[in-house]
Amino acid sequence: MTETFVVVGGDAAGMSAASKAKRDDPDLEVVVFEKGQWVSYGACGLPYYIKGEIQSLEALVSVTPEEFRQERDIDLRTGHEVTAIDPDTRTVTAERTEDGGEIVQSYDHLLLATGAAAVEPPISGTDREGVYTLGSMSDGKELREYVARARSEESFHQSDRGPACQYLEECSGPVAVIGGGYIGIEMAEALAENGFEVNLFQRGDRLLKGFSEETSETVLEHIEHQDVVAHLGSEVESIAGRDGAGDGGGAGGSEAVGAVLTSEGEIPVEMVLLGTGVRPRTALAEAAGIELGSTGAIATDAYRETNVPDVYAAGDCSEAIHTVTGDPVYVPLALTANRHGRAVGQTVAGTPTEGGEVAGTAAIKAFDVEAARTGVLDHEEARAAGFDPVTKTVDARSRAGYYPEGGTVRVTMTADRESGRLLGASLASEYGEGAVHRSHAIVAALEGEATVFELENYDLAYAPPFNTTWDPVLVAAKVLSSAIQ
Amino acid sequence: MTETFVVVGGDAAGMSAASKAKRDDPDLEVVVFEKGQWVSYGACGLPYYIKGEIQSLEALVSVTPEEFRQERDIDLRTGHEVTAIDPDTRTVTAERTEDGGEIVQSYDHLLLATGAAAVEPPISGTDREGVYTLGSMSDGKELREYVARARSEESFHQSDRGPACQYLEECSGPVAVIGGGYIGIEMAEALAENGFEVNLFQRGDRLLKGFSEETSETVLEHIEHQDVVAHLGSEVESIAGRDGAGDGGGAGGSEAVGAVLTSEGEIPVEMVLLGTGVRPRTALAEAAGIELGSTGAIATDAYRETNVPDVYAAGDCSEAIHTVTGDPVYVPLALTANRHGRAVGQTVAGTPTEGGEVAGTAAIKAFDVEAARTGVLDHEEARAAGFDPVTKTVDARSRAGYYPEGGTVRVTMTADRESGRLLGASLASEYGEGAVHRSHAIVAALEGEATVFELENYDLAYAPPFNTTWDPVLVAAKVLSSAIQ
Repeated sequence: MTETFVVVGGDAAGMSAASKAKRDDPDLEVVVFEKGQWVSYGACGLPYYIKGEIQSLEALVSVTPEEFRQERDIDLRTGHEVTAIDPDTRTVTAERTEDGGEIVQSYDHLLLATGAAAVEPPISGTDREGVYTLGSMSDGKELREYVARARSEESFHQSDRGPACQYLEECSGPVAVIGGGYIGIEMAEALAENGFEVNLFQRGDRLLKGFSEETSETVLEHIEHQDVVAHLGSEVESIAGRDGAGDGGGAGGSEAVGAVLTSEGEIPVEMVLLGTGVRPRTALAEAAGIELGSTGAIATDAYRETNVPDVYAAGDCSEAIHTVTGDPVYVPLALTANRHGRAVGQTVAGTPTEGGEVAGTAAIKAFDVEAARTGVLDHEEARAAGFDPVTKTVDARSRAGYYPEGGTVRVTMTADRESGRLLGASLASEYGEGAVHRSHAIVAALEGEATVFELENYDLAYAPPFNTTWDPVLVAAKVLSSAIQ
Repeated sequence: MTETFVVVGGDAAGMSAASKAKRDDPDLEVVVFEKGQWVSYGACGLPYYIKGEIQSLEALVSVTPEEFRQERDIDLRTGHEVTAIDPDTRTVTAERTEDGGEIVQSYDHLLLATGAAAVEPPISGTDREGVYTLGSMSDGKELREYVARARSEESFHQSDRGPACQYLEECSGPVAVIGGGYIGIEMAEALAENGFEVNLFQRGDRLLKGFSEETSETVLEHIEHQDVVAHLGSEVESIAGRDGAGDGGGAGGSEAVGAVLTSEGEIPVEMVLLGTGVRPRTALAEAAGIELGSTGAIATDAYRETNVPDVYAAGDCSEAIHTVTGDPVYVPLALTANRHGRAVGQTVAGTPTEGGEVAGTAAIKAFDVEAARTGVLDHEEARAAGFDPVTKTVDARSRAGYYPEGGTVRVTMTADRESGRLLGASLASEYGEGAVHRSHAIVAALEGEATVFELENYDLAYAPPFNTTWDPVLVAAKVLSSAIQ
């Protein structure tokens, strides 16, 4: 009898699972429910689309719905939102967006790949016109349209100018980006490069809080140099309308954005982007009795199976085990979603496959700087996992000192004092000077549970156009190793 | 009583050892004998000096003799060639180049860091004017002078032109580079970029024989595209004089180069660069009863100590243990020399430190292409070490497909069929697209004895400006892993 594999959610995790399962077991019936119209798209590319470096939204789609249906023989139902799961009858109920009609689909294996939703910060006025988030393709489309409109409207060029704008040849008028993480910084770049005066608000005292302080500082200095006005330790309390009233006055929530009110005072802006992080979409799972973990995301075993038999979870709705600490963590990123999805597909098709752990690795480009982080950097987190963390930071040349090109790679590295075990690292360099690709070595060392004493002896490639004889990674390991011994 | 540490050879290994020993134990008397005048220089930078990208030879010197003497308190004696070692009396004899005077110096610890010498290929006519090698700073100086002279002399611009030259705006007359390894290719670039028509002769059927065939092919295609005429499988039999006679005719060996005679016939050239590899300088050691290993280089234990107590060897004169096979190998490269030297310095200063193994890692830039290799790629070599090698090659995008910049990373990866253990990899990409920095991850995986099943699950950094969701390294591991399972 033909088995049915039902997938809820048609992005990275869901479509990876569907494709892999169907490829490995062509007899399997694979049904995917996706509430929107877009599937399998590179959300990570949206800031570059908004910036204008990528011309069409379609370019972000790696496989089209038609290709999934026709070439991969997957029963992909876009415009279908799954509203309930019944583990007893092994069925899901889905609602057609188009006409509200309901269908009930039975499954033998079920994957929840419901992704993450933007966190709505506790700020009043987020429903005003001119307030955006960036999670979906349609968000991306709206933002690009906003940029295009603003650039062409004279009125935007006559608005009040802040300090950043005096250096720009052509300047659109001030916008607010709330949140100093990936989305916030990438969007600050996309907007600033389009001539907007960007105010970046970060509640904490530094950007990119998962990276090392030194990396955060490098990125901060650079984006300020690019005329982004960074407001650190600044809590946005409300988004006001054009009359400046805190809660929109007579026009209510629909009045267009005019200012943000912060602990520092009122700052006039014409647009607000909320980049305050994401949270796992778990409501559907919870209603079906599927357990969440300590992180608030869906808990699974190593094979991505939840507490309910034959129900799996993958990607941004679920948690994963950390390579270094062995503890569950919530790190919603693209590679993990793909990897977990693929593993579930393989498992469902008959070859039980573990989803793998995560090292909390992340990378970002901010204007002309690149940065990456991996492992455990936070001392409190390291101590909670039983380590005695020691951290060192080095600035090292990215290429031979005499080589005509080159810059600086700043490496922050953390290890356990007792064992010397490498715990994590954070790297920053000029864009093109290799901070991100060098982080690959750190990840590999973490996966192998290497010590810094071992790492400093790695036989890394050397030639003058690529590094100094001791690559910055080795220099950092040497300095840290000396500090521990 | 003050102990004395004597070092023979003042380049990377020798000066690393001397500096580290003196820093760790300031009471130690450290004496370095160097037969030449230059110490601690970046020989790897010479091709870029000759090319004209680096303006002064002094820029290649990382620490000057004066700095070693005054700031580091090292008794550095340039212009002193050590001619004998007497392990019984624990003394070395050195001859002053200046006046032929001899001195006898006693030692408590002795390091041989005599380096490597260019291999003289079995070709007649190598003593002609216009035949160069590239091993030392003075070789570099002579070659740069040759390039400058040739570029300014009209006669060089009137000589016979080969096919390469027709595309160049200004063209100096044909030269031969013998040897398709690092030096050969880097010098082909340096010469071609200066307008020379370069004939590159390689005895074997491909360039860069330590790299994968696919990497060799990528580099070959690229340098041919840059108008270097590559003669593969071509044995140079002799270097003829200007009259074309095989052995120089009446003027004997001193007559200037006029042509190379190969199995393919005679090719007129005005200069010949010999880049046919290096061999360890071991005569001094052998005369003192110090044993060589199976590779022909000086054998040592893990602490770099030879069979003679308190006599160490480091760098290009000595062999090392291979990370993957555990067998002794001869891989004379800069990082190993530095690392081994540093370890000996530390050992001599009282903290026994292993020199570490080598993975046979190497990197090269060839015009606008970069490549790296590490581990064991050769199937015969892998089988000799007890593995059953399987190799796969993938072409993967270096950045997200929709990202405006980017190219291709070609990854060749080898693993053991039975265990899945990663054995090695060879990578090539456009310059700047990260083949070399990505090889760092492979090295780290080799050092940790990872399998490809593990490697394909590494949580490597991802963002569109740096890679696809699955980095090319992961793509290669996935393909290879599927081929094995």
